[in-house]
Amino acid sequence: MNSKFIVIEGLEGAGKTTAREAVVSELQRHGINDIIFTREPGGTPLAEKLRELIKQGVEGERVTDSAELLMLYAARVQLVENVIKPALARGAWVVGDRHDLSSQAYQGGGRGMDAGLMNSLKQAVLGDFAPDLTLYLDVTPQIGLQRARARGELDRIEQESLNFFTRTRERYLALASADSRIKTVDATRPLEQVTAALQQTLTQWLQEQR
Amino acid sequence: MNSKFIVIEGLEGAGKTTAREAVVSELQRHGINDIIFTREPGGTPLAEKLRELIKQGVEGERVTDSAELLMLYAARVQLVENVIKPALARGAWVVGDRHDLSSQAYQGGGRGMDAGLMNSLKQAVLGDFAPDLTLYLDVTPQIGLQRARARGELDRIEQESLNFFTRTRERYLALASADSRIKTVDATRPLEQVTAALQQTLTQWLQEQR
Repeated sequence: MNSKFIVIEGLEGAGKTTAREAVVSELQRHGINDIIFTREPGGTPLAEKLRELIKQGVEGERVTDSAELLMLYAARVQLVENVIKPALARGAWVVGDRHDLSSQAYQGGGRGMDAGLMNSLKQAVLGDFAPDLTLYLDVTPQIGLQRARARGELDRIEQESLNFFTRTRERYLALASADSRIKTVDATRPLEQVTAALQQTLTQWLQEQR
Repeated sequence: MNSKFIVIEGLEGAGKTTAREAVVSELQRHGINDIIFTREPGGTPLAEKLRELIKQGVEGERVTDSAELLMLYAARVQLVENVIKPALARGAWVVGDRHDLSSQAYQGGGRGMDAGLMNSLKQAVLGDFAPDLTLYLDVTPQIGLQRARARGELDRIEQESLNFFTRTRERYLALASADSRIKTVDATRPLEQVTAALQQTLTQWLQEQR
């Protein structure tokens, strides 16, 4: 089987980190050991610098929605061109914590950014490049934010309103239902059940790829 | 007269700094004293951080053309929304060292970036916002680069090839000839002649605005 790009998506507190561990152990159980991890925004020196600007902003200056979106795509193009594509080309599997679907959901849905601009950016930066599989961990904003808050300080984006996250989740669900490469997993359930569901989804998908 | 946004454009070594002084003294001679300066990329705390990433890159990582373009527009939207528009609204004049025409010339002409993406970005970031007057200082790349080199270290973009700057200049000239709000000044001539030409152009333009 050719190497694949698998992405884990979801709101804050959806359980992406735990899911990553479950995905990796499941891949290893299938004999796949050459795996690299990416996170977005970030994952290259330049993209990590952009991540900091996106997440923390700059003291005393409002970050416009447009600048946020453009920095996200600048970070993404660096990661895709300099890390993800070379890794896939040499046969490594790539497991990503967030990718383009996050921008579609948060900036497109949550912030209501212009669809024309979003499409132009996606086309210019990614072209036909897309994850082979996206595992979308679906939680309500209420549950997700409660978990995120329990974890500590919230960053600039995590401090958005409940309405923002509700719009983001709605966009996630709409996009997932329209694309067979996105699998939705109910992540409001207890951890062990979520992990079991993820591993089952992944096993089935791996079998379909053979 | 309402406050205006005047931009100075040109290749490296075209003499933009000297031109700015000439523009300011000419504005003051016409009784205009509330003037702010901007430079692009930069001019806000976030935009200056992006400027550094654009100009210097990051050790050991190639900056893709797309990421460069997106960071330029992220910096621009911050400057326009947080500095230029508020300044114009309170009645200040704005004199800018570079603006959107630089991206059109360098990224569109020099790097040959996709026109569709360029137009989407411009429309999304700027809408109908545009300088009232652009003074384009035209020099050959040979003369401009010789002057820039005499000044010291060259940054990431200044190290581009002569062909890159030739394409950039050609785009500048084409755009200037198609837009009556862009005035081309021959900047290959001795400094005093360039300054005199700039001041004459500006005086005439100011008279037309009354």
